[in-house]
Amino acid sequence: MAAYRVIILGGGFGGLYAARAMRNAPVELKLIDRRNFHLFQPLLYQVATGSLSPGEICAPLRGILSRQRNTQVLLGEAVDIDPHARTIQLLDGGVFPYDSLIVSTGSQTSYFGKDQWRTWAPSLKSVEEATAIRHKILYAFEAAERETDPAARAAWMTFVIVGGGTTGVELAGALGEIAGRTLKNEFRDIDPKAARILMLDAAPRLLTAYPPDLATDAEESLKHLGVSFRPGVKVVDVDGAGVSIEDEKHQRERIPTKTVLWAGGVNAGTFGRVLAERTHAATDRSGRFMVKPDLTLPGFPEIFVVGDLADIPGPDGNPLPGVAQVAMQGGAYAAKSITARVKGEAHPAAHFHYSDRGDIAVIGRAAAVARIFGWHLHGLLAWLVWLFIHLMYLVQFQNRVLVFIQWGFQYLTFSRGARLITGSAVANSVNPGPTMRNLAEE
Amino acid sequence: MAAYRVIILGGGFGGLYAARAMRNAPVELKLIDRRNFHLFQPLLYQVATGSLSPGEICAPLRGILSRQRNTQVLLGEAVDIDPHARTIQLLDGGVFPYDSLIVSTGSQTSYFGKDQWRTWAPSLKSVEEATAIRHKILYAFEAAERETDPAARAAWMTFVIVGGGTTGVELAGALGEIAGRTLKNEFRDIDPKAARILMLDAAPRLLTAYPPDLATDAEESLKHLGVSFRPGVKVVDVDGAGVSIEDEKHQRERIPTKTVLWAGGVNAGTFGRVLAERTHAATDRSGRFMVKPDLTLPGFPEIFVVGDLADIPGPDGNPLPGVAQVAMQGGAYAAKSITARVKGEAHPAAHFHYSDRGDIAVIGRAAAVARIFGWHLHGLLAWLVWLFIHLMYLVQFQNRVLVFIQWGFQYLTFSRGARLITGSAVANSVNPGPTMRNLAEE
Repeated sequence: MAAYRVIILGGGFGGLYAARAMRNAPVELKLIDRRNFHLFQPLLYQVATGSLSPGEICAPLRGILSRQRNTQVLLGEAVDIDPHARTIQLLDGGVFPYDSLIVSTGSQTSYFGKDQWRTWAPSLKSVEEATAIRHKILYAFEAAERETDPAARAAWMTFVIVGGGTTGVELAGALGEIAGRTLKNEFRDIDPKAARILMLDAAPRLLTAYPPDLATDAEESLKHLGVSFRPGVKVVDVDGAGVSIEDEKHQRERIPTKTVLWAGGVNAGTFGRVLAERTHAATDRSGRFMVKPDLTLPGFPEIFVVGDLADIPGPDGNPLPGVAQVAMQGGAYAAKSITARVKGEAHPAAHFHYSDRGDIAVIGRAAAVARIFGWHLHGLLAWLVWLFIHLMYLVQFQNRVLVFIQWGFQYLTFSRGARLITGSAVANSVNPGPTMRNLAEE
Repeated sequence: MAAYRVIILGGGFGGLYAARAMRNAPVELKLIDRRNFHLFQPLLYQVATGSLSPGEICAPLRGILSRQRNTQVLLGEAVDIDPHARTIQLLDGGVFPYDSLIVSTGSQTSYFGKDQWRTWAPSLKSVEEATAIRHKILYAFEAAERETDPAARAAWMTFVIVGGGTTGVELAGALGEIAGRTLKNEFRDIDPKAARILMLDAAPRLLTAYPPDLATDAEESLKHLGVSFRPGVKVVDVDGAGVSIEDEKHQRERIPTKTVLWAGGVNAGTFGRVLAERTHAATDRSGRFMVKPDLTLPGFPEIFVVGDLADIPGPDGNPLPGVAQVAMQGGAYAAKSITARVKGEAHPAAHFHYSDRGDIAVIGRAAAVARIFGWHLHGLLAWLVWLFIHLMYLVQFQNRVLVFIQWGFQYLTFSRGARLITGSAVANSVNPGPTMRNLAEE
């Protein structure tokens, strides 16, 4: 009898946890990703703000899965699917058949159709973008030190963050600490503490996914770090010299700035769109698939969609958020379903049930807000919980220890170890990863 | 009385040690570099081979010098000098006057006039190039796993290192360990141990700067790691499909390979060439300045040249090698000279004297060759000496501890923590650093 072939697309939280859950399953598993590493996305903002190096929050997929003998890791990008013939096509033309498929290719940043803004306002999705943000932030202070014209200097010293969700709050808090503490005494002609850090959102308050009391706490903590928040404003233009915004009364305003960071919305990536076309599956406004309660696509019980790409209704009727927990639990659920099918057993749970453990947003040194099992925490306690959870989940033992030491050192000294201005301030493209195609072109 | 103005160009070993030696001098000091960090160059090959992250071997210049109140760090690239008016011009047009100048802008990789080879054969000068090399090495194994054509797979599995000096030996040794140990069990369709690692040099033996017995030891150790060395061959062409070589009998041979690493010679950088033109100072074949015994240029007692850019005759008549020790001692000597002049005192030593402590090249785990105070060491002992010296010299306390932990972990597990394929396999340009110009263009 031929082996039962499972393909997992994407080595993020959904795909990786699915692969690990199938380590003893009687299947022939291929995990395909266009990157050779798993990225611990929740700490990417620390790379962007010079606290950690990319290597400290990434782990090679091959290394994680090397002992799993039923699994092969392949570097490649899925570009097409034939859901009737049950095959996946990769960018370089390779075609791989499957008996079951788990799609966890994730989301990408949405600029609301204004993709040209990406050049000026990098988002925080890839390692390359995080490095580009780090470049922009650190370079702005360098340029301000060199600049003698007051208006031009003010533009370098103004930082605008678009989006008041978790990522925006974390970036703004880290920026406040860089300006107020890390760079203290390092410049001669500017005072980094005088930097203007502005956070914008169209929503009426910060952190709309959190209870209002925690959002108020967060805004207060950010104010202490020199960050001001403006609710109810829409971005109407971004270019190399500044941001144009519009408030609820349609008043326009121009903010001259050289540094805009994008922490806005997301939509489905390229493969998600192809999948929707080929399967005629329904998607929501953000391109997420309206999956069945068992996370499969209607009419295709062998195709599972997990993670950011799935629209799974939560207890309040809204879709579950695009966070690591949802992806990990979805990946593990899909893996169990497949294993049960191969063994001819019934799945222990016919419906996926998300066990919500809460949310945490960190603001700075010893400051965070958290909703955990129904409790609302803030300040030092929330921060300690955040620290503990993130250390526990970092995939590799080595990274865990190193990150802990980095944090300990930085907590004591206010320094940041990874303050390198390298590469370019513009991450090349939506998919900056190496693929068969772009290497062939080189 | 106006302050005495000192400019240091370049924050490498020469410039940084000069700046630190003047921390209490009654001068107004500007350290200008096109990068915002000091790079611990001797460990760059470990970034290229996935052992360390760039942040772990770099330290922000501002951070190192923040408490030195007489010193200002400026991000900028010197493009011209008027040695009679005593001014330096930066890329964006800023002009800075000096009373004394220390030039420590270093060398750049020489492709013997064939700059087009750079695209296919990155060298190991900058963080960006190290990341590009890491990309190429790791990607080659990924592509070999995907490739089904035997000839194409063999080309991906062949690695050619041009140059048998310290850098070449270190790269080859690390590559041997990656293929033989790190990647063990991680692939399903290829055996990384079967990789062919070839090291070429026009010289008749490895490590010509070392005594012959140590070179023989090194070649032996490399052979154990699967690296073969071919002396007496010249590279005549490099492209995307392979390397063409010619031996001493003018026999040509083509080696199909997708991965060529350049560990060849160096020449003076752009600013070095401008300085030679403006001062009419004599340079040697590699563009290094024939400095006077006090490290100044003939006719310009206020211009010191230190580090890789200076041709200082050694005890055997050959120029001192382009290593950190020479640059550090040169920088400190120039700083003492300037301080003595400002104070109106005589310099304690009218001639620069290099105190040679030896050379070390590391080959792999517990294997190295060293010449220290006249002793010849090899194997574990040489490796322990190497470890101790490098840990001692890493500039920042934090980096030192982290690197030590990384090494300890990797020594025990054969793993490599920083195996990320990021960015591009081609470092953009000779000067990949951010400058006022390229940011303005973006």
